[in-house]
Amino acid sequence: MRARDLGLGCGTLPPGPRNAITDVPGLRVGHRTLVHGDDIRTGVTAIIPHTGRMFREKLPAGVAVINGFGKSVGLVQVEELGEIETPILLTNTFGVAACTEALIRHAVAEEPRIGRRTSTVNALVMECNDGHLNDIQALAVTPEDAVAAIAAAGEDFASGAVGAGTGMSSFGLKGGVGTASRRVALDGQDFHLGALVLANFGRAGDLRLPDGRRIDPREPVETEKGSVIVVLATDVPLDARQLRRVATRGGAGIAWTGSFWGHGSGDIMLAFSTADRIPHAPDAAILPRRALAEGKIDALFHAAAEATQEAVLDALAAAEPVTGFRGHSRRALREFLA
Amino acid sequence: MRARDLGLGCGTLPPGPRNAITDVPGLRVGHRTLVHGDDIRTGVTAIIPHTGRMFREKLPAGVAVINGFGKSVGLVQVEELGEIETPILLTNTFGVAACTEALIRHAVAEEPRIGRRTSTVNALVMECNDGHLNDIQALAVTPEDAVAAIAAAGEDFASGAVGAGTGMSSFGLKGGVGTASRRVALDGQDFHLGALVLANFGRAGDLRLPDGRRIDPREPVETEKGSVIVVLATDVPLDARQLRRVATRGGAGIAWTGSFWGHGSGDIMLAFSTADRIPHAPDAAILPRRALAEGKIDALFHAAAEATQEAVLDALAAAEPVTGFRGHSRRALREFLA
Amino acid sequence: MRARDLGLGCGTLPPGPRNAITDVPGLRVGHRTLVHGDDIRTGVTAIIPHTGRMFREKLPAGVAVINGFGKSVGLVQVEELGEIETPILLTNTFGVAACTEALIRHAVAEEPRIGRRTSTVNALVMECNDGHLNDIQALAVTPEDAVAAIAAAGEDFASGAVGAGTGMSSFGLKGGVGTASRRVALDGQDFHLGALVLANFGRAGDLRLPDGRRIDPREPVETEKGSVIVVLATDVPLDARQLRRVATRGGAGIAWTGSFWGHGSGDIMLAFSTADRIPHAPDAAILPRRALAEGKIDALFHAAAEATQEAVLDALAAAEPVTGFRGHSRRALREFLA
Amino acid sequence: MRARDLGLGCGTLPPGPRNAITDVPGLRVGHRTLVHGDDIRTGVTAIIPHTGRMFREKLPAGVAVINGFGKSVGLVQVEELGEIETPILLTNTFGVAACTEALIRHAVAEEPRIGRRTSTVNALVMECNDGHLNDIQALAVTPEDAVAAIAAAGEDFASGAVGAGTGMSSFGLKGGVGTASRRVALDGQDFHLGALVLANFGRAGDLRLPDGRRIDPREPVETEKGSVIVVLATDVPLDARQLRRVATRGGAGIAWTGSFWGHGSGDIMLAFSTADRIPHAPDAAILPRRALAEGKIDALFHAAAEATQEAVLDALAAAEPVTGFRGHSRRALREFLA
Repeated sequence: MRARDLGLGCGTLPPGPRNAITDVPGLRVGHRTLVHGDDIRTGVTAIIPHTGRMFREKLPAGVAVINGFGKSVGLVQVEELGEIETPILLTNTFGVAACTEALIRHAVAEEPRIGRRTSTVNALVMECNDGHLNDIQALAVTPEDAVAAIAAAGEDFASGAVGAGTGMSSFGLKGGVGTASRRVALDGQDFHLGALVLANFGRAGDLRLPDGRRIDPREPVETEKGSVIVVLATDVPLDARQLRRVATRGGAGIAWTGSFWGHGSGDIMLAFSTADRIPHAPDAAILPRRALAEGKIDALFHAAAEATQEAVLDALAAAEPVTGFRGHSRRALREFLA
Repeated sequence: MRARDLGLGCGTLPPGPRNAITDVPGLRVGHRTLVHGDDIRTGVTAIIPHTGRMFREKLPAGVAVINGFGKSVGLVQVEELGEIETPILLTNTFGVAACTEALIRHAVAEEPRIGRRTSTVNALVMECNDGHLNDIQALAVTPEDAVAAIAAAGEDFASGAVGAGTGMSSFGLKGGVGTASRRVALDGQDFHLGALVLANFGRAGDLRLPDGRRIDPREPVETEKGSVIVVLATDVPLDARQLRRVATRGGAGIAWTGSFWGHGSGDIMLAFSTADRIPHAPDAAILPRRALAEGKIDALFHAAAEATQEAVLDALAAAEPVTGFRGHSRRALREFLA
Repeated sequence: MRARDLGLGCGTLPPGPRNAITDVPGLRVGHRTLVHGDDIRTGVTAIIPHTGRMFREKLPAGVAVINGFGKSVGLVQVEELGEIETPILLTNTFGVAACTEALIRHAVAEEPRIGRRTSTVNALVMECNDGHLNDIQALAVTPEDAVAAIAAAGEDFASGAVGAGTGMSSFGLKGGVGTASRRVALDGQDFHLGALVLANFGRAGDLRLPDGRRIDPREPVETEKGSVIVVLATDVPLDARQLRRVATRGGAGIAWTGSFWGHGSGDIMLAFSTADRIPHAPDAAILPRRALAEGKIDALFHAAAEATQEAVLDALAAAEPVTGFRGHSRRALREFLA
Repeated sequence: MRARDLGLGCGTLPPGPRNAITDVPGLRVGHRTLVHGDDIRTGVTAIIPHTGRMFREKLPAGVAVINGFGKSVGLVQVEELGEIETPILLTNTFGVAACTEALIRHAVAEEPRIGRRTSTVNALVMECNDGHLNDIQALAVTPEDAVAAIAAAGEDFASGAVGAGTGMSSFGLKGGVGTASRRVALDGQDFHLGALVLANFGRAGDLRLPDGRRIDPREPVETEKGSVIVVLATDVPLDARQLRRVATRGGAGIAWTGSFWGHGSGDIMLAFSTADRIPHAPDAAILPRRALAEGKIDALFHAAAEATQEAVLDALAAAEPVTGFRGHSRRALREFLA
């Protein structure tokens, strides 16, 4: 069940063929879902930006931190160097260390010079706190789980309470992983921008649907302890500065779902472009690049906001009700749409 | 005519008695409106944060730059020192120099030591481009106009096509200056947060009302060349870091009106607190301050987003239709609400 | 008299033929010096980045704000869009408004569509406080002075107490404008990086020469009320993010002169590249760019730090003793080198 | 052997009684040194800011990222919330995950509500790449090593090739951990600012001693692959914005040792104040704070720059020669001072 199956499509731009971040050619997504006994409801989601070795062929990237109340790993270097050099892992807050270790071992396996005859590697892991449904103190995520998520990556993947989204909550409802995409035409050519969100934010009662309806699950309005991670990918050539600007518009998409970016919610957006790879060890000092004419960037801004909004609704649309840690439960958005 | 007169109140928090930024005690606002012949439709709006001398008694402040495509003056120092030391002037893009000069002369008149026996002064001027309705090349705003706006300041002031808002456009409609406020209870005491916006942003057709309706003025959708300035004031004690966080939530309020923070729109938010003044020349090295417990800050975030959203609608609700430069015109929101 | 004439060359990299920022091909610098009666000791310095129309052919640029206690104009937009679109003017703190107005008029004269049929223009003006030697309250700088500085621009220009440097002080000595350059070889080709500084910083006694000597003018150690502006230009292709990184290294050069970037000193660095121009209205959406392989950027970092350090000493080496406002005076570095 | 034992004291301000970061009352430092066989030369250094439970009683903190080419954990949240809530661990780049896990378990042990009935915890781990002397691919650091470093913390601790400094290199010489402090008088009362650095930066030949001498170990000048971490602590009351400004001045101290902050060197500074603790769950909404009058902050800036410079030299002064991974070795500074 996707957002559009429930009539929750957003905006006016056309989606790509999968309406998913994997409409960006070569990009794959994989989940590792952990459900053990009554208490463990968590997992890992991996985004593999291209089919090559990420450390040897990096991609330009930008970060927007709307609310830095979060424990993500690797963002400082992305901001400095404007590039990513590993897959992107999403997990729960206390799974970040295991995922970091997994990415280091994965990179070293692909490129044994790392840390010995060349620089080290910047693992990129982002997180939300799934402590309502998952016993986060159990530190259930292992490096092996992260490897499994990477190994599971493909062009087709599930939305909802899977992977990193297994234990997440949003607007007092069951949250999770969601995705959407938009098609963008430039110079007579078709490109795509896709969003993948880990939706674990929003106070009960604040959710707003595209037609203006508010959805109130009649849950107690707690202080927000969640977060939302937005990953935006595109095959349009953009430089790091432009990608930071595009990433920022993920924040508008989040606001469009009804959120005011609460204190407790680490709202973090990352955008990258797969159009041109940055070699780790180039042959020349001065390299050709491509970038978008800045005057055309509104097409990307608009797509980023719409795709982000719809990806949040996609997560909610796909999520099944879940009962977990200490009997805490979250109902599904579907139950409130009749 | 205010936003609520048209049924355009926003959100759930209670407004203050004036539903205006002047619900913050001691704060005053003044306009200087310039309408000359067919071509000049511009002006200056002054926000006077307190009744004392601003240079001697500064206020903590924070800035959020959602989109830095703008020509405001003074923000770099506010970010470094976390304080404001002059009134805040709003005007058109090419009026910034005249307003800067006026603020320097105004500060020197109040404090003749400036630049001679003590430091210089950081003039704070923010702007939008009113070039659609106003011949901005005429550089019509003078330092005297800025002085007149300051002199006109009071607790009651008009919204709409007045002061800096005279020539502004928003969502293909007549924009301008708008305001709103929210009451916030903390420790059993009532405080206020107020917003004043200079609304000159948004593509035709993107405006969204609180009930979800879209308003389409059936104007051509041009590339956004506008901007929006959001000034937030509160009597809650907040430090500069907290005020930056509150300012950021003005961006959510802007998004709630339907905008995705277009490329051409400099979206800049400033927040300050009037609770405690910072003396220019204190007697001691270590000074008492007050701040809000961070866990309570959602009350301010929520108020900032709601007041900003309503202030934009207030500008549109109050604005009369205007015809100006080269016969360009903008219709009023009211015409589309029937 | 230049720094090297006094044995004050810095570092190990070779300077360019002029050892000046004008070693970057096409770049010109002009001064307007204002000395009236006993009290006015100020001026304007203009940096013209290339021989075309800046608004139509912008250049990539980056900013580093080490200490934002300053009143420069235009930096927020440079940070957002990563480009400059006017000449760069340096002046005293209260001359910023006049210089901003001059740049607006200059741009409109070259491109009459500005603000009418295309966007407005981002004037770029940076400043220091020359209030010790100059009656800054007189607001002596006019738009005509700024125009005169632009008109005077050439490849050869003076260092010392000229232009914007006329009334500046540094380390208790007479400061002013200084310059230096370094040659950088990449891919078998020669490039240059040049620095121009407006040196008005440093406490008396803190100045450190390249050989480690401290210079103490035996002036009272006042609280720093100055600032330093560093402009770095290069013909190496660099994108905006890389230019921000290069600009940051100007801060190392400032530290090497003995400063710890005092509270009162607005330490602001701007770097731009003349290698590739960015058209205001490009023909295509996706544009070719060039950038430096990041692994080669240390050559630029090293050059930026060395050229900045030497440019400060160049300002001090060239400056004649000056007596000005209220009989205040500054002696020349030369007097202390014997 | 400390810096001053070799005549390498820096600057003019008086050091504290230990000339160490532990001159800040209540602060303790502990090392865990790992030397196994020929290849493992690494470790962990723990800074324990106060004697209470850090999660319950947080401290205001600020971050300055001069060069973000680094893999530290926790900085994004420090920038947002302006506080630290765990001990600070230093280690090698690939030891960050293990240290993060250790800090999470340590915090949960002290406060079992974490992640269950209250928010999660922001582990703070900073790192340098010791891959020249240590087989970093071995991932030798374990959570138990981090616990051991915390358990070893005291007021007296060693400088040099110990703890996180075991395998570090600096200026082509053996680097490591170093420390220094300065006494600061305010309002007739004595305070201290202390620095602890993890020195792993600087190209061979660039080291500059306080008297101006260059030290060239006649090692090949490699591209910098190192980094430097600077931790500054003080008992002066400062807010988060002020602490960010103080942290920045660590960068001047680094420059004073001869570095231009090379591309490969993640230069990251953190400053915190122990003067006033921030309760995790305060009783009231509006809280008293204290801050320094901004006009007095130069005393802290000066102390931060001097203490950082001397802490680097302290690391080099104390470090013994080391041979490690693949027979790579580093000689000691001492050998070149005769």
